[in-house]
Amino acid sequence: MTELTRRAAFGALAATAALPALKIAPAAAAAPAAGRQVPGIYRYKIGEFEVTAINDGVGSRPVDESFVKNASLDDVKAALETAFLPTDKLAIPYTQLIVNTGHRVVLIDTGTGGQLSPTAGHLVENMEAAGLDNKAVDAVVISHFHGDHIMGLMTKDGKKAFPNAEVMVPEAEWAYWMDEGEASRAPEGRKGAFAAARKIFQPIAKDIAQYGAEKEIVPGITSIAAYGHTPGHMAFRVASGADQVLVLSDTSNHPALFVRNPGWHVTFDMDAATAEESRRTLFDMAAADRLRVQGYHFPFPATGHIAKAGDKYDFVPAFWNPAI
Amino acid sequence: MTELTRRAAFGALAATAALPALKIAPAAAAAPAAGRQVPGIYRYKIGEFEVTAINDGVGSRPVDESFVKNASLDDVKAALETAFLPTDKLAIPYTQLIVNTGHRVVLIDTGTGGQLSPTAGHLVENMEAAGLDNKAVDAVVISHFHGDHIMGLMTKDGKKAFPNAEVMVPEAEWAYWMDEGEASRAPEGRKGAFAAARKIFQPIAKDIAQYGAEKEIVPGITSIAAYGHTPGHMAFRVASGADQVLVLSDTSNHPALFVRNPGWHVTFDMDAATAEESRRTLFDMAAADRLRVQGYHFPFPATGHIAKAGDKYDFVPAFWNPAI
Repeated sequence: MTELTRRAAFGALAATAALPALKIAPAAAAAPAAGRQVPGIYRYKIGEFEVTAINDGVGSRPVDESFVKNASLDDVKAALETAFLPTDKLAIPYTQLIVNTGHRVVLIDTGTGGQLSPTAGHLVENMEAAGLDNKAVDAVVISHFHGDHIMGLMTKDGKKAFPNAEVMVPEAEWAYWMDEGEASRAPEGRKGAFAAARKIFQPIAKDIAQYGAEKEIVPGITSIAAYGHTPGHMAFRVASGADQVLVLSDTSNHPALFVRNPGWHVTFDMDAATAEESRRTLFDMAAADRLRVQGYHFPFPATGHIAKAGDKYDFVPAFWNPAI
Repeated sequence: MTELTRRAAFGALAATAALPALKIAPAAAAAPAAGRQVPGIYRYKIGEFEVTAINDGVGSRPVDESFVKNASLDDVKAALETAFLPTDKLAIPYTQLIVNTGHRVVLIDTGTGGQLSPTAGHLVENMEAAGLDNKAVDAVVISHFHGDHIMGLMTKDGKKAFPNAEVMVPEAEWAYWMDEGEASRAPEGRKGAFAAARKIFQPIAKDIAQYGAEKEIVPGITSIAAYGHTPGHMAFRVASGADQVLVLSDTSNHPALFVRNPGWHVTFDMDAATAEESRRTLFDMAAADRLRVQGYHFPFPATGHIAKAGDKYDFVPAFWNPAI
């Protein structure tokens, strides 16, 4: 085709292309709306380990005077507005972690088991969507005994949700929550948590292993004392080769509030001063060492970095990498 | 069970529970590593519309002196480091949108068709993972004629990838890229783009509708002139009821660089001054009206908000909502 004829051809194309009018819209689209979100699953590598973040769903919490104990409601609402979040209710996500070390398939925390929130309880189905079988989990590591971390250990009809898994719990959590004296002295608002811990752990107590702080509980996974949120609350370092992720557990609730304002005390922190100290220590470590972090109540996929910003911090979500 | 026997029972539990030693780790995990990311798909509602963001993959671009035309390489690398991104290469994601209005299934931009980057070309398979059939797409809207937006319109063997779709393109794009005079005057680095536009559009030219700026091209979807990146580059307002999302197309490349620094000129902007003006205009509108935005080269799911930060802006990723 010569230059001249090519030009003529494209001139003709341009002329005809401008002609067709937009078609009349059909009465209904050929495809119905899906009406639901896709499964909340996301993968990344830590050295040789394959980590899968799995979202169990969200709970909804009214934003009221009691939510942040030492900040005004106006300041809390302003922080939510800055983060483009609703200011009346806060959706608090629950994201668990599967760490496949090549030798073990380890689940860190177990979600709500569908027993705490109508919009949560999707851990096992989302694992399936990720090609992960609940029977292939051979270790479950619990960070602390709050219901949204332990209820998913058992099915609604009282069976083990991860039947082949060794269950590991912090010894200080066991000592506190399973103690009858503590249970009897608990304030009214905490009695439900004591009951939940008993409901979940009593039937499988003989199979449970307890672990302390700063222990390599599974090769590559080390417990880190992060007390205050609960008496024995644990964070974790998951490391393979030179790579690592700091699993914050509940060191911070929603980052728009408690990463941004590390001095704010969420109502769920049992010993707020100790929790704040743990939070600042882990945030300083994450920021100084530029560590990847994973936060249980961070927006899915709940992973990224902590940047120091004066006396505050920013959570910088990780780049979604389509090619791990 | 009396209080006394309950206490005794839990005392016994606590005693036995501390005993089991950690099991010996098996030689290999029961489940093999998946070795790949999950499909990049994410849904949200805009009024009655269901929007699905679909990631085609990423391209990789060396971070060199030529990438940002009016910033020093040191400043560019510093901005990437602040965002916890690698400083030698930038992964540039490609995210398309499906808008199901209930009456039409509209695809905005078409990705790379697997012909530009070895880590991209996943639009159709990721649509399938989202339950979306390529044959159900009845309109394809093209924002501009760069290859990563148009190559996916045709399969590698030259068939229509969306066989039942009307194709709508900006009239100013057609006028520029299909013009033989422009093609003949194009600098060397732009000849590939001219060839790609011809390869894609020539076989289907008779089926293409052209649209202008500020037109409701599909009920609920309005074109917005965002010139500069290319001569006819379009953004879109997708609106249903009181809700809307501003589809930025390539008004900004990666937000860590060009939302944060709206005055920076990416090498891909053909008329950098006009592109900057479009960028600032749309960012100011998005920030002032607190509009949800969708950005083609933003990290997946590529949606969130633009916040003004002095003479810069911040991109605030949207909360991943598991319950749409």
